[in-house]
Amino acid sequence: MKDLPLILVTNDDGIFAPGIRVLVEEMRAFGRVLVVAPDKPQSAMGHAITIHNFLRLTKVDYMEGVEAWSCSGTPVDCVKLAIYKLLKGSKPDLLVSGVNHGANISINVLYSGTMSAAVEGAMESIPSIGFSLMDHALEADFSHVRPVIRSVVGNALKRGIHEGSCLNVNVPKASHGALKGIRVCRQARANWEDEFETRLDPGGKEYYWLKGEFKNEDHGEDTDVWAVTNGYVSIVPTQFDMTAHHEIAALNTWDHGVE
Amino acid sequence: MKDLPLILVTNDDGIFAPGIRVLVEEMRAFGRVLVVAPDKPQSAMGHAITIHNFLRLTKVDYMEGVEAWSCSGTPVDCVKLAIYKLLKGSKPDLLVSGVNHGANISINVLYSGTMSAAVEGAMESIPSIGFSLMDHALEADFSHVRPVIRSVVGNALKRGIHEGSCLNVNVPKASHGALKGIRVCRQARANWEDEFETRLDPGGKEYYWLKGEFKNEDHGEDTDVWAVTNGYVSIVPTQFDMTAHHEIAALNTWDHGVE
Repeated sequence: MKDLPLILVTNDDGIFAPGIRVLVEEMRAFGRVLVVAPDKPQSAMGHAITIHNFLRLTKVDYMEGVEAWSCSGTPVDCVKLAIYKLLKGSKPDLLVSGVNHGANISINVLYSGTMSAAVEGAMESIPSIGFSLMDHALEADFSHVRPVIRSVVGNALKRGIHEGSCLNVNVPKASHGALKGIRVCRQARANWEDEFETRLDPGGKEYYWLKGEFKNEDHGEDTDVWAVTNGYVSIVPTQFDMTAHHEIAALNTWDHGVE
Repeated sequence: MKDLPLILVTNDDGIFAPGIRVLVEEMRAFGRVLVVAPDKPQSAMGHAITIHNFLRLTKVDYMEGVEAWSCSGTPVDCVKLAIYKLLKGSKPDLLVSGVNHGANISINVLYSGTMSAAVEGAMESIPSIGFSLMDHALEADFSHVRPVIRSVVGNALKRGIHEGSCLNVNVPKASHGALKGIRVCRQARANWEDEFETRLDPGGKEYYWLKGEFKNEDHGEDTDVWAVTNGYVSIVPTQFDMTAHHEIAALNTWDHGVE
């Protein structure tokens, strides 16, 4: 067993979501599997970590031959606890996150707990992949996602993922027909046109619910939005260097004098 | 008053932190000021948003001539509520976030609620700047930060910040001597070597506290870490396009067949 790769699995929908079960089932064919995932839904938690509170880990009877822990924190907390508590500082050979119930295309990579866990893996120099299905339903059909997982994970273990980046994989909904293939893409420029629904509590005080509409402004055929809306799986190589390197020269023309 | 720019101010240390007060005081000289900031500390919340719960806004008596609201959510929630609830979808002319109690250099840009608010501003096409002081103390000395704020905000209003990016400004601690100037930098490649302190609750059950040590691995003199540890203010242009564009060609050599 020692020569099999150690694969860390996490997500943001919580350890009992169907999507992570699909990922764990597929990972058992590739190596030893350690699951550390949130004990409750942690969608849209981004790269949040818990610093003003403590964390708990609870061992879970999950699946034959799989060590699994539910964690009281965020997806990024799960990655940190897996490495620095459970593995005592040694790194897994691969980190996979998801399969997310809902797409993480375009700027959603920033809000997504699933992708933030993969980004945290990259920051730890672990080959890391986030998988998302463009279907929010808890009872979503993941059968067409399985061969995609096998292809991408097989390639990642064979070819490696370059230091400093991870992969953001999004799969169209099953009902959208047979997959046309896998495309390597860039993150589309889109945004959320938000709205807050105002309600009154029984005491007459206002409260607000976020309701957003995703607006794609980027019609490039090399984007993740184009790929998944045209029947392809998108893979976006995703980095944690957020420097806008192309802006450095322009900023150097500013008069930076401090009076 | 109508011609004065409208400036949105937020942070992640909470509306009653001293750092945001410094920023608001300085912004009053540049335009009309709207403060929407968390009602409690929200450090390390990253780009988290609240989707499984409602949000509250409470009007706060803050400073002469300044409209201020405390918000029950994260820093990014504050930005969304400011734009889509208080301003009814119109955008402020500038967004400033901070002054953070503690540096947000290198990869900390990903964990930081202060910088995530600025990144959210950029996603909304608002010129946005995050300010952080390399001093966690609540009673930190911000006097040397004030001229930095005036210089950077003055330039940003005059020259603009290009669409798709925002600025991450970090200022050394006052006790480190006179500032040597302002340097435009890239985000250093560093990481956190984490540790979890294990404790037992009164019932004998384990719980964990995150304790990390920041390890810089990047000795480039063009980095933010180099700048702030050598007496300079760092400005890193920061983008929300996380695509590792330079990895696309390599990934296209993979065999992406789906069996």
